[in-house]
Amino acid sequence: MLICVVNPNTTASMTEKIGAAAQAAASPGVEIRAVNPEFGPPSIEGYFDEAFSVPGLLDEIAKAADADAFVVACFDDTGLDAARSATAAPVVGIGEAAFHMASLIADKFSVVTTLPRSIAPIEKNLIKYGLMARCARVRAADVPVLALEEPGSDARRTIEAEILRALAEDGAEAIVLGCAGMTDLARDLERKVGVPVLDGVACAVGLAETLARLGLRTSKRNAYAFPLAKSYAGAFARFSPG
Amino acid sequence: MLICVVNPNTTASMTEKIGAAAQAAASPGVEIRAVNPEFGPPSIEGYFDEAFSVPGLLDEIAKAADADAFVVACFDDTGLDAARSATAAPVVGIGEAAFHMASLIADKFSVVTTLPRSIAPIEKNLIKYGLMARCARVRAADVPVLALEEPGSDARRTIEAEILRALAEDGAEAIVLGCAGMTDLARDLERKVGVPVLDGVACAVGLAETLARLGLRTSKRNAYAFPLAKSYAGAFARFSPG
Amino acid sequence: MLICVVNPNTTASMTEKIGAAAQAAASPGVEIRAVNPEFGPPSIEGYFDEAFSVPGLLDEIAKAADADAFVVACFDDTGLDAARSATAAPVVGIGEAAFHMASLIADKFSVVTTLPRSIAPIEKNLIKYGLMARCARVRAADVPVLALEEPGSDARRTIEAEILRALAEDGAEAIVLGCAGMTDLARDLERKVGVPVLDGVACAVGLAETLARLGLRTSKRNAYAFPLAKSYAGAFARFSPG
Amino acid sequence: MLICVVNPNTTASMTEKIGAAAQAAASPGVEIRAVNPEFGPPSIEGYFDEAFSVPGLLDEIAKAADADAFVVACFDDTGLDAARSATAAPVVGIGEAAFHMASLIADKFSVVTTLPRSIAPIEKNLIKYGLMARCARVRAADVPVLALEEPGSDARRTIEAEILRALAEDGAEAIVLGCAGMTDLARDLERKVGVPVLDGVACAVGLAETLARLGLRTSKRNAYAFPLAKSYAGAFARFSPG
Amino acid sequence: MLICVVNPNTTASMTEKIGAAAQAAASPGVEIRAVNPEFGPPSIEGYFDEAFSVPGLLDEIAKAADADAFVVACFDDTGLDAARSATAAPVVGIGEAAFHMASLIADKFSVVTTLPRSIAPIEKNLIKYGLMARCARVRAADVPVLALEEPGSDARRTIEAEILRALAEDGAEAIVLGCAGMTDLARDLERKVGVPVLDGVACAVGLAETLARLGLRTSKRNAYAFPLAKSYAGAFARFSPG
Amino acid sequence: MLICVVNPNTTASMTEKIGAAAQAAASPGVEIRAVNPEFGPPSIEGYFDEAFSVPGLLDEIAKAADADAFVVACFDDTGLDAARSATAAPVVGIGEAAFHMASLIADKFSVVTTLPRSIAPIEKNLIKYGLMARCARVRAADVPVLALEEPGSDARRTIEAEILRALAEDGAEAIVLGCAGMTDLARDLERKVGVPVLDGVACAVGLAETLARLGLRTSKRNAYAFPLAKSYAGAFARFSPG
Repeated sequence: MLICVVNPNTTASMTEKIGAAAQAAASPGVEIRAVNPEFGPPSIEGYFDEAFSVPGLLDEIAKAADADAFVVACFDDTGLDAARSATAAPVVGIGEAAFHMASLIADKFSVVTTLPRSIAPIEKNLIKYGLMARCARVRAADVPVLALEEPGSDARRTIEAEILRALAEDGAEAIVLGCAGMTDLARDLERKVGVPVLDGVACAVGLAETLARLGLRTSKRNAYAFPLAKSYAGAFARFSPG
Repeated sequence: MLICVVNPNTTASMTEKIGAAAQAAASPGVEIRAVNPEFGPPSIEGYFDEAFSVPGLLDEIAKAADADAFVVACFDDTGLDAARSATAAPVVGIGEAAFHMASLIADKFSVVTTLPRSIAPIEKNLIKYGLMARCARVRAADVPVLALEEPGSDARRTIEAEILRALAEDGAEAIVLGCAGMTDLARDLERKVGVPVLDGVACAVGLAETLARLGLRTSKRNAYAFPLAKSYAGAFARFSPG
Repeated sequence: MLICVVNPNTTASMTEKIGAAAQAAASPGVEIRAVNPEFGPPSIEGYFDEAFSVPGLLDEIAKAADADAFVVACFDDTGLDAARSATAAPVVGIGEAAFHMASLIADKFSVVTTLPRSIAPIEKNLIKYGLMARCARVRAADVPVLALEEPGSDARRTIEAEILRALAEDGAEAIVLGCAGMTDLARDLERKVGVPVLDGVACAVGLAETLARLGLRTSKRNAYAFPLAKSYAGAFARFSPG
Repeated sequence: MLICVVNPNTTASMTEKIGAAAQAAASPGVEIRAVNPEFGPPSIEGYFDEAFSVPGLLDEIAKAADADAFVVACFDDTGLDAARSATAAPVVGIGEAAFHMASLIADKFSVVTTLPRSIAPIEKNLIKYGLMARCARVRAADVPVLALEEPGSDARRTIEAEILRALAEDGAEAIVLGCAGMTDLARDLERKVGVPVLDGVACAVGLAETLARLGLRTSKRNAYAFPLAKSYAGAFARFSPG
Repeated sequence: MLICVVNPNTTASMTEKIGAAAQAAASPGVEIRAVNPEFGPPSIEGYFDEAFSVPGLLDEIAKAADADAFVVACFDDTGLDAARSATAAPVVGIGEAAFHMASLIADKFSVVTTLPRSIAPIEKNLIKYGLMARCARVRAADVPVLALEEPGSDARRTIEAEILRALAEDGAEAIVLGCAGMTDLARDLERKVGVPVLDGVACAVGLAETLARLGLRTSKRNAYAFPLAKSYAGAFARFSPG
Repeated sequence: MLICVVNPNTTASMTEKIGAAAQAAASPGVEIRAVNPEFGPPSIEGYFDEAFSVPGLLDEIAKAADADAFVVACFDDTGLDAARSATAAPVVGIGEAAFHMASLIADKFSVVTTLPRSIAPIEKNLIKYGLMARCARVRAADVPVLALEEPGSDARRTIEAEILRALAEDGAEAIVLGCAGMTDLARDLERKVGVPVLDGVACAVGLAETLARLGLRTSKRNAYAFPLAKSYAGAFARFSPG
């Protein structure tokens, strides 16, 4: 089984880290292919960056026709609905994956993400998925995404402090890490804070693999129907079904 | 006052129709500039098409630095959140505009859109805005967007039939037309069906104009903060603040 | 175009202030007529006062048969549903107006009103309109309505302090002023606190004017149908259609 | 114990019928005093009529200072919040009473009311109370309120037919009769349709009596605080605490 | 009229206290029979204990075929849905009873329960009943259930302190005591804190008595239909309808 | 890895069928142990049967201390919260599993269950999980659970007909089969109806396996804390931690 994990930003070091986390989470015999678009923003911080990452993300999905399942490895689940329309293979976002898995092991969870501007997109996703009822609070540690890539930054300590506030103030029983770049922190933080700490990359690989193993594919009725044949004005030839 | 109305698809005849409707709705002294992107899909039918129209939409917003307000003239409110991040001028989507205005003149409204694949994006927007509580039902007349541009098509009759079903079955007290391409049908349909029929283009122009007149601009705190300075990998130079 | 702005309380100085704000917000060529009932309470603070202001409000609406649109200038949207039944002209409440407009420029807003007893009516309205999802919190500054009319009161400072708490604690991106008597404070407070501060009077005038310009009138199907012909026991002859 | 049941309309025959139903529902030793205002509409059908019935309703409450509890006997719970502010004695609306009691004996109930214009006020109340989650549907039998007072009208048959539709289509497990004028129909309809049929008058008397027996009185903190001392412009002297 | 009050735990001193509170709340002429199961946990603290108390609770209901109504006297409303299926007599849980009664005398209430593990079951019940909209917050005083039975424990003081926090922080207008073992504290706490303090036992007796007096019985359509005839594997012979 | 799948009813043929489906869904190397309680009802149809199956279910969980994860194989997720309290290993219900997985491949799904009395428990679970927003409708095919075990019954045809109604009337994009006894029908029905058809047993095995592989265990903070040491009155000695 081949799972294509698309990091929708263009920062290769992050793609590598995500790929390693994905492979570690996968069952024996599952191949992970971690990729990122050739064009687009180096990190996704808010709605504007999201918009410019989606065409590149869809480009990667079109290139990976041999994949059995896809993971969209941005915690905002950037372009997830469009990706589901582009393929019949199952597509799982790391944000939704973490929310669904957290709902299975805790009555209520809190999310700790990077910047305050990312709170609204995450809350809107939770409302869209129906899972806001299970989320105690979405919090931002005020750490830029790429600070997570810098050795020696105090990002990890800042995130841990925000998790402790979530436990003290929100009634949270589990913590969801709200950025793909935090994927390597989950285990260590879990040991420190004493409740489950969920990394979306691992959760999404597990769900994508399960969907593929069970033969569950994206419904093509209504919302995620294949795009109609039309020209995209020459700019994105790979996507023109016509 | 200048309002820039962006049709996010690339069909010029539709841009013209939208521009005429916008000008007709505007107060005296308000200038309407109707534009469409140079690249992207010719019509927006579902999540996949949305994804490819947003960069072009943002390109048009960046070009219109002199506008006092913007209207995004696709009923799915395509790219609306990203557009709000790109400018401090107010930005209004025609979908949200129609929902807000319908809420002021009716207890409950139904939406009649084009294809079944557009029902989910519209419902998700209504949930996101909070206004699902006011919407009796989102219906599709099963008419492709560009059929609305063809003289002699029976699109108008099919839409009218769907409206009558909405009145008979949904308890709707007003009807929202769910596509920018229906902008020229509202008045005539209202006369025929006997309840208010709302066109999002006119509603959005009214709201955009009002926001601009009152000096109300998009909040730059959190969700719609300006994009951080970063390179978009060369592909979209106009947007690179760095 | 004539917009009749009804202050449902009987305090003439407040009606004047509201009228001035309304005229300042209106487009050129729009005439504002600000009135208040001949009978009823001098200020509306809670459900009990609301009840006694509604007949007088409806009386003013009946007298203004020449108006193209109405504004109900009490932030609790006192009597709004009854007013919509009484006329086919559009009727806009200043509370709902501010909520709708704030939703167009911010992901989440907080409301700052006068007394704690007004929090429940405002929250219940937000739930009824569907817009509670967009409201971070309704707060009371504990300032009586008529203190806003007294020169030299420290009402303004108290309100500003409450706004700053809303920004620090609620994640609000915009502030809605929760009383018609605060209409003259919005601009100044906005400059001080650095996020949009919305005054319902200006918002409602903009929406009423837009509805009238677009020919959108209150639906007479079901909820807002004209009252049936019946005698109101002699007490309110002006309203007896029979 | 004295329970004052206020029919907020001015139709004496309806007050008598309500009084008889209330007395039949009360425990031994509970005295029922059924009254109606001296002024106001003869029936309450929609928001406009509601507005004119509330001052008279509050007048009756002020006159009955010796009552241990009050019942507001209009299914729209007209003026309920204002009534709760006017007295510390418990006040129960017949609409809310029926919703709460139905929730104790059925997973889901449907409401059958009189005219289509009453659906919206009832739905809005259900949303406000939180109990919309338990209501399958609000239906109108299209029977005017006063037709229920006419001997020989086919109102009863029309209502029964609507109940049967509710059972067939809504999944309802109980039926709430949506008008005080239907109080004498409940028992007979229950026998015919085979599920519990609830009359709000009986339910409200039971709840009011229980609140009074347990010494539970309306909270005077915030929402239902006593009105502040102010003049009501001479028109309603009885209510001026000053 | 006979009301059977089942304390679903096996602590006889608690059953006695509950029985006394129930009799004090009942109308003259209403007989209270307070019982507890022969087997099961001595207190119910969380989901696990709930599971083991339900068969015994249903056993007590089966034994009391002469009861006109039942009260389930655990604040988690343990086994309530199963109990409703087991009999046509009305069954009222003390949790739901307190929530419904509090909704009649306050806009918003807070719940103060025993242990943190009980917060989730109570919140889930509030969501299920639809009444979460009326609840400001569910709080735990961190007092074990049986500490309420120990003379000289400081449970009462701890609970009072938590109530004062609820008033200061939640905007609550009434307090619901979240454990059957607190039934004897309500009156005294109400005097101290100045808002209504509700005990579920008294509320449930009042509602059960009212349902029985009005002839309202559990609907046997769908959710609460009688169990189908089947063998329960010999273990619970009393419940086998076959 | 060992996954213990507990069928909470006592029908061995159903346990066998469930075990086979579970093994077919599991990854290579995952061992499935399918068990059922020694005591309890032969099928679970409604709240009453649920109550009597939970002690036996918890007994099986206590016996399987070597399991890495548990599946509760009744679609009502019977006793799921209690099971989560009883062990730190992850526990997944087949109802919740199907809802979560359906949410990953379809915008909206409908559920087709056995008897009308099971609709309410399923709807209440959906509300509790937060996923009602994704469910178009819960339908009953009116097929008793054990009819699914009888060769030659027309249960399969009746279920297929109900699925077709769900597609025609609900706007569903996927179908969730609402009973563990339908586990062998999913593949065949999916081929016939052309949209994904989900079996909860397979979904739950996938999720349980994923949780175990990722080291995600039930949070022991608050809701699912281990039971406190107490005697269960001798009746269920195996569960007495004391």
